[in-house]
Amino acid sequence: MALIVHKYGGTSMGSTERIRNVAKRVAKWTRAGHQIVVVPSAMSGETNRLLGLAKELAPAKPDTAYNRELDMLASTGEQASSALLAIALQAEGQPSVSYAGWQVAIKTNDAFTKARIESIDDARVRGDLDAGKVVIITGFQGVDDSGNITTLGRGGSDTSAVAVAAAMKADECLIYTDVDGVYTTDPRVVPEARRLQTVSFEEMLEMASMGSKVLQIRSVEFAGKYKVPMRVLSSFTPWDIDINEEAASGTLITFEEDEQMEQAVVSGIAFNRDEAKISVVGVPDKPGIAYQILGAVADANIEVDVIIQNLSKDGKTDFSFTVHRNDYTKTLDLLKEKVLPSLGAVEVLGDAKICKVSIVGIGMRSHVGVASKMFRSLSEEGINIQMISTSEIKTSVVIDEKYMELAVRALHKAFDLDQA
Amino acid sequence: MALIVHKYGGTSMGSTERIRNVAKRVAKWTRAGHQIVVVPSAMSGETNRLLGLAKELAPAKPDTAYNRELDMLASTGEQASSALLAIALQAEGQPSVSYAGWQVAIKTNDAFTKARIESIDDARVRGDLDAGKVVIITGFQGVDDSGNITTLGRGGSDTSAVAVAAAMKADECLIYTDVDGVYTTDPRVVPEARRLQTVSFEEMLEMASMGSKVLQIRSVEFAGKYKVPMRVLSSFTPWDIDINEEAASGTLITFEEDEQMEQAVVSGIAFNRDEAKISVVGVPDKPGIAYQILGAVADANIEVDVIIQNLSKDGKTDFSFTVHRNDYTKTLDLLKEKVLPSLGAVEVLGDAKICKVSIVGIGMRSHVGVASKMFRSLSEEGINIQMISTSEIKTSVVIDEKYMELAVRALHKAFDLDQA
Repeated sequence: MALIVHKYGGTSMGSTERIRNVAKRVAKWTRAGHQIVVVPSAMSGETNRLLGLAKELAPAKPDTAYNRELDMLASTGEQASSALLAIALQAEGQPSVSYAGWQVAIKTNDAFTKARIESIDDARVRGDLDAGKVVIITGFQGVDDSGNITTLGRGGSDTSAVAVAAAMKADECLIYTDVDGVYTTDPRVVPEARRLQTVSFEEMLEMASMGSKVLQIRSVEFAGKYKVPMRVLSSFTPWDIDINEEAASGTLITFEEDEQMEQAVVSGIAFNRDEAKISVVGVPDKPGIAYQILGAVADANIEVDVIIQNLSKDGKTDFSFTVHRNDYTKTLDLLKEKVLPSLGAVEVLGDAKICKVSIVGIGMRSHVGVASKMFRSLSEEGINIQMISTSEIKTSVVIDEKYMELAVRALHKAFDLDQA
Repeated sequence: MALIVHKYGGTSMGSTERIRNVAKRVAKWTRAGHQIVVVPSAMSGETNRLLGLAKELAPAKPDTAYNRELDMLASTGEQASSALLAIALQAEGQPSVSYAGWQVAIKTNDAFTKARIESIDDARVRGDLDAGKVVIITGFQGVDDSGNITTLGRGGSDTSAVAVAAAMKADECLIYTDVDGVYTTDPRVVPEARRLQTVSFEEMLEMASMGSKVLQIRSVEFAGKYKVPMRVLSSFTPWDIDINEEAASGTLITFEEDEQMEQAVVSGIAFNRDEAKISVVGVPDKPGIAYQILGAVADANIEVDVIIQNLSKDGKTDFSFTVHRNDYTKTLDLLKEKVLPSLGAVEVLGDAKICKVSIVGIGMRSHVGVASKMFRSLSEEGINIQMISTSEIKTSVVIDEKYMELAVRALHKAFDLDQA
């Protein structure tokens, strides 16, 4: 007998028919002798509907009091879907009970709309499991020290599920979603993309943060911190497939270094075209310059991704970075008006038509020449590299966005990702 | 400065536009210097939508576990509307906070779907009021001793509002609804029907239980128990009408005997055609007969309203009672099959085409001849009376349903109810 946490996304909970299918699947797992805790999202569309109503009524200056009410409002979506799933399980003859975040109690800080989980008291849940019940815990929400309802931010049900699994020392956390696992890259770009049987926690972090939208990144961080074995799998397989087959499907996210040793050097290719590049050219090369530029950007609440400073020449250097495309014009204006005059730099250049392509793989740590193989592969396709940034387990390049698909396909092939 | 509880029904909360109007009205009351607690219902249609989803998934045999989930589900409707109203008030520049039943805490017993309020802890609410906030408390729900969410049954928001008003010793509880008060009778039947400025608690109980659907009867009982001054008024007047005018509008439900002394003998005419009449004829007049008949009916969960036993003649008597029309055939069959054989009665007769018309008035206590005036008035219209039942403040007759409107109009005129 294992203790397993199931998490179902909004699409999987999207109608009474789909909720009934989730119930049949969960009941199958209990019949196989496992204790199951389920963390469902709100029915798809419900959170947007509720927040849409709030937006129609919102005050001119949203403040903490407003955010508190947003959480009161949005948390109702998961409470409703949880109760419906409990009802559907009861209809399957499987005793079940649902709890809101405050009832179990998922304690968070008081950062409304983006709270962080601090503790979970699982006594009540264990009692129910031992009594043969499936326990359903609302995703996405908790309660602060003053008894206010909080939510964890969009996609927070993933994090709730992992936090519950961690607190209860569950044997595995299964994230049921509308894709059947993590792929070497987006199959819409590379038809040969292959589902990974396993991916390391660190690789998953890099994939999640770079456009592979399978899992909320905070849930992966949480799983890594508490070493919760976590599997991404599809909720659209027939509910009655063999349980062993289901248990081995999808992609397992692992934390044990040993398991990684035999893995391929590169596990996947991530990419996005959400960014824009900005360069401050001819900056005097002296201490404090990076802060002078990026401090002003950060003060304007603009998030910066890749940052590069080239070697200086004649006491001058070029300083480049990328921001989200939505912040592109704002950043350019800011630099021209506020930073350039005091900096003594020659000019500010920008380009919004770029993309970022990354190879990700824990194997890079122990293999030399991975980056150079990437650069050669791109050069063979005639693709010019504008920026490079590296970490221990990934190498990213910024290139002209028109080459994005070509670059992804070329790299996918160069690193043999289409081979099992 | 007064402490006033406002209650708004589902129609008043039916859209963001209407919620904005409620917010403007409430903000007007706070600007006039009052402390306001608001108890809103769910947006109209929402509770039915949620319970409809549950019905699609319901187990074959609904049990306590199912009812518990229904309450988890249905309570989200009021939580959402409460948060939306708090947001709308904030947008009006009026600080506001919403609380779910468990947060304040409205303690109930654990009778899911029809729980009863046991206590309210108002400390948190008082703190917010003293800090200048409008406090919004979800109607219709509470929390049991084990921390489960409970609901009070349909229409329970009225009861929540009165319970909050009672617990906080509010100066008045204003029930905003889609009618502008309690009338002498239904204006659709008697165009001359007049809005009552005041109605006594006991009269309101009789009116509420006899088809005047303005208030949930339990809220009136609650108000009576705790002597909460309660006013029914319209939420469809312009929100910016003069506050003194608004405060004096609608119908005030009073509890002081003194105020009643000057009132009219009869305050209103209630009626319904939901009942059917059943007579067991030629029953041997001996002890235990009433129990033998009605015990069987009660065992079948059939509710009985009027009960009459006539004088016996030759050791035989006739025993008549009314049940809801939906239970008519079931009751007839039950009596014929199970009761008649062992009873030695001659036969069972029934008539579903009846109606009940009642005159209600606390003044009847001290005025003789009220009932006879009623009977005379009906006889002048050629209406035959089939059954009569009386209490201290009402007299009801059962007549052929085709005479209902005629009887109501005749009685309304006979007791001068169209005169202010």
